Amino acid sequence: MALRARRLAETVLGIARRESTVATALRLGAADEGSLDPASIEGADLVVLATPLSAIVPTLSRYGHLLSPGALVTDLGSVKGPLCVPGAVQLPEGVEFIGGHPLCGSEESGPSAAREDLYEGAVWVLTPGLGSPPEAVSRLAQLAEAVGARPLLLDAVTHDRAVAASSHLPHLTACALAAAVGAAAATTPEVAALCAGGFRDGTRVSEGSPEVWRDILLANRDAVLEQLYGLSGQLAAWTELLQASDGDALAQALAGAGEARRALLSHQQG
Amino acid sequence: MALRARRLAETVLGIARRESTVATALRLGAADEGSLDPASIEGADLVVLATPLSAIVPTLSRYGHLLSPGALVTDLGSVKGPLCVPGAVQLPEGVEFIGGHPLCGSEESGPSAAREDLYEGAVWVLTPGLGSPPEAVSRLAQLAEAVGARPLLLDAVTHDRAVAASSHLPHLTACALAAAVGAAAATTPEVAALCAGGFRDGTRVSEGSPEVWRDILLANRDAVLEQLYGLSGQLAAWTELLQASDGDALAQALAGAGEARRALLSHQQG
Repeated sequence: MALRARRLAETVLGIARRESTVATALRLGAADEGSLDPASIEGADLVVLATPLSAIVPTLSRYGHLLSPGALVTDLGSVKGPLCVPGAVQLPEGVEFIGGHPLCGSEESGPSAAREDLYEGAVWVLTPGLGSPPEAVSRLAQLAEAVGARPLLLDAVTHDRAVAASSHLPHLTACALAAAVGAAAATTPEVAALCAGGFRDGTRVSEGSPEVWRDILLANRDAVLEQLYGLSGQLAAWTELLQASDGDALAQALAGAGEARRALLSHQQG
Repeated sequence: MALRARRLAETVLGIARRESTVATALRLGAADEGSLDPASIEGADLVVLATPLSAIVPTLSRYGHLLSPGALVTDLGSVKGPLCVPGAVQLPEGVEFIGGHPLCGSEESGPSAAREDLYEGAVWVLTPGLGSPPEAVSRLAQLAEAVGARPLLLDAVTHDRAVAASSHLPHLTACALAAAVGAAAATTPEVAALCAGGFRDGTRVSEGSPEVWRDILLANRDAVLEQLYGLSGQLAAWTELLQASDGDALAQALAGAGEARRALLSHQQG
């Protein structure tokens, strides 16, 4: 949709598993043409894989041979390490794969969540390998910029370690919080009536696709576990402060948490 | 502001500690008159205490004797137990105290955060005691309704147990998450650039007033600790699922968390 609104592609072909997805994409103007057959990528200049993580390598293994020299392949997956290991993605000579991760997701998915300004102001991480041709990298960076995003080149390992903290931990935290409050409501039914903004915002992402998030968490398992240990340590520290009824230390920790948030978000535009 | 917009009070007198707070309240139209002296409550029909929790009892102990029979006193505090213990609040014969808690807060505070539609659609918990005169309770319930809120009568203990899960746990979770991600950014600076919607929403309330929240957490300590233990148990369970790389169980838990959220919020209007 963003490409079409800015007339950046001659033809946008949308390929999906379900007829209804193709129909919605065409109706909303997210694609010029639709197809249910991945083999339709034959002849494409640019292929953007927007499948769950676990389908990326199998899809490329099966259909990549149809691409011609000069074609560029990228993905939108949230974990980059497994794709960027040399040899993980096998493509014909002259066809380049460069991993990508635009940080503009929400708990919504599917074509009905499409917005032509989705990428506006978002960071779009690109994870070229050591052998990626600079012109292919810059072509992809220009594409990200053309739809309003800010390209950021990172190695895959650094990306994965960073998103474990910035994105995957917040997701698991939202899920654990929703489950914990749900369990409390089972014994104290009044909980539901008293859920307000803090609960609503704090758990919003827990409604994201379970399959997409299962793939993300498994693909980035070790880095996510490290972050989970960090959060558990934090919770233990807050629990101790409260057990000790230490008001001064508690106020200081509360202020510190707000400052940490402000510092993290001050690096962001928009 | 809500009272004035609906012409529900002859005169709204705003009492604050700081001159600037009074000036802002008057400028924004949240009060007809302003004062720095709590003794100005003399002659009031209705007193609404919007101080941090720890100031409520001391304020009433010092100035409550100025009120005349028929006057009604309420508060907006997030924890009701300590105020609703018989004898906690000493007032002249014929002056009634009934605890209240409108669930419409945000991370903002002070008169500049005032909005005349703040209470629209919000649940407003009232916690009358066994001796509260029914006409005082219904007068307060009508006031809540008049500004667009939905009054809900609860005993103080049930209220406090429910908000420990629905509000206080989400607050501590947001703080622990902000602190954990801040710690991760200290070793992996790229974390800040990659903080997106999940982190922003999940930590929003951590910027609330540290003093207000210290009071809330200490006042509701035991119920909050119980919820913290529940969340720690949840996090341990999610950690085990990931350690075991159990994709099916992980997807099931993720789906369950989303369902728990939907179920909790389906009880809400607006």
